[in-house]
Amino acid sequence: MFVNRIRIRVEFGDCDPAKIVFYANYFRWFDQCTSALFDAAGLPLRQLFKAHGVVGIPLVEARARFIIPSTYGDELVAESSVTEWNKSSFVVSHRFLRDGELAMEGSETHVWATVHPTDAHRLKAVPLPRDVIQRLSRTKKRAPRKG
Amino acid sequence: MFVNRIRIRVEFGDCDPAKIVFYANYFRWFDQCTSALFDAAGLPLRQLFKAHGVVGIPLVEARARFIIPSTYGDELVAESSVTEWNKSSFVVSHRFLRDGELAMEGSETHVWATVHPTDAHRLKAVPLPRDVIQRLSRTKKRAPRKG
Amino acid sequence: MFVNRIRIRVEFGDCDPAKIVFYANYFRWFDQCTSALFDAAGLPLRQLFKAHGVVGIPLVEARARFIIPSTYGDELVAESSVTEWNKSSFVVSHRFLRDGELAMEGSETHVWATVHPTDAHRLKAVPLPRDVIQRLSRTKKRAPRKG
Amino acid sequence: MFVNRIRIRVEFGDCDPAKIVFYANYFRWFDQCTSALFDAAGLPLRQLFKAHGVVGIPLVEARARFIIPSTYGDELVAESSVTEWNKSSFVVSHRFLRDGELAMEGSETHVWATVHPTDAHRLKAVPLPRDVIQRLSRTKKRAPRKG
Repeated sequence: MFVNRIRIRVEFGDCDPAKIVFYANYFRWFDQCTSALFDAAGLPLRQLFKAHGVVGIPLVEARARFIIPSTYGDELVAESSVTEWNKSSFVVSHRFLRDGELAMEGSETHVWATVHPTDAHRLKAVPLPRDVIQRLSRTKKRAPRKG
Repeated sequence: MFVNRIRIRVEFGDCDPAKIVFYANYFRWFDQCTSALFDAAGLPLRQLFKAHGVVGIPLVEARARFIIPSTYGDELVAESSVTEWNKSSFVVSHRFLRDGELAMEGSETHVWATVHPTDAHRLKAVPLPRDVIQRLSRTKKRAPRKG
Repeated sequence: MFVNRIRIRVEFGDCDPAKIVFYANYFRWFDQCTSALFDAAGLPLRQLFKAHGVVGIPLVEARARFIIPSTYGDELVAESSVTEWNKSSFVVSHRFLRDGELAMEGSETHVWATVHPTDAHRLKAVPLPRDVIQRLSRTKKRAPRKG
Repeated sequence: MFVNRIRIRVEFGDCDPAKIVFYANYFRWFDQCTSALFDAAGLPLRQLFKAHGVVGIPLVEARARFIIPSTYGDELVAESSVTEWNKSSFVVSHRFLRDGELAMEGSETHVWATVHPTDAHRLKAVPLPRDVIQRLSRTKKRAPRKG
């Protein structure tokens, strides 16, 4: 399993009047984690999408459990990896740690899809390229990097 | 079951380079739907939080399934209701329809909690007020309103 | 001058730990106001962009003055109009009122431009269509609508 | 002048259907830059706000000029510094460079203020602490750090 780690610093504007992270931001960070994961596997999204003629890796499902709230100034370590491969979809799992403790865990199910050129409402699932699966399945681990 | 409906218009800035809604925005809209649900039940959040000494209704879990993508200019009808009550937590379910078709369905588990006054990292779950449960359990339905 | 008004409800998640609107959200609302302005003038953006082969109306400048802070539960009335026309750019001005008082005023300078098909880093300014100028210069006023 | 630099990586979800950064995100990044600037000066915001009994450094004005658009995968170097000191307000200027070229420049005017404890609509400007001015006026330069 190829695991990537990035550091996320919680900003003032990420927090709500309860002084904790406004939860929609976790899902914005998932996007950042997944992008960094592909990057670390040598598959930067922009080049990948262009090479394969896909417009993105749209989501069909997302979920998160919020275990310990965080506030501005906190630094989270986010660990991400692909935990499931299907024909044209895959699951990315994320674990956010603060001071070594699990603060949040969640996952996203992405499809490898093309959006119909004239109808933004239609998506067409396409089989995942073998190369993408292989690169994201390696067992290499990376040191955390600032995200 | 008390069901509230609001209309959500998808904006240009809500969409990503795939020309569909960037998914973290659905969770931002959940917040808006839940706030409108409490409002419709006669429990506007600001007054409610002040009256009960809570700083918010933090999330412990959230999930969504994205069925049909939407793009800018689309109008979604969001139906929201509390679908589960526990001692100090509750589940709000959301269904987003476009042209009558289910485009997204998801849910959030909130806790009725106080944040520790000096430590933003600690939350204290508190039993849900009876009045809150009663008002959000009525069977009244409302016409959609612009959100 | 064609003026459009929408209502904006401030949500919990729009506010920061100071319990006031996190200011980047005002600029997100500008996008919503401008979209509603074009809509009200009979120029819905999606159709407009498609008809003219433009990918958007990118910004070259934006500014805002924050006069009275707002918090969640507040309702703002946003008044928007095009206040300046140039050959291939235009200025949209926004005034946000709360209870009749000016809470924020700002403006955005947009260009009517095509993004180079293969290089997202290049923009090409194109003369504004006469029809767009005419429709947004009419003196009709509209009642506020929920946004 | 104390200048701080951070690196900002543009994410997929930061971009709009024109495939360039949705402009409200620049203002979100300003918040991140200002926070990093205070951090680098030895004034982490959370501790600073607590020590001085302020709830934040609310904005009275913000502006930006967008010179070169950026897209996902791009890395920006953001240079930030306080460029003006007044009795109870200060201006933070930001310059975002991509590959050494100026892509965006902007500024924010913050006030050093307390929000009235019971009325979120009232702010009270307070004289800036001498220590804050001194630390942010030093001439030390720092290497870019990942933000």
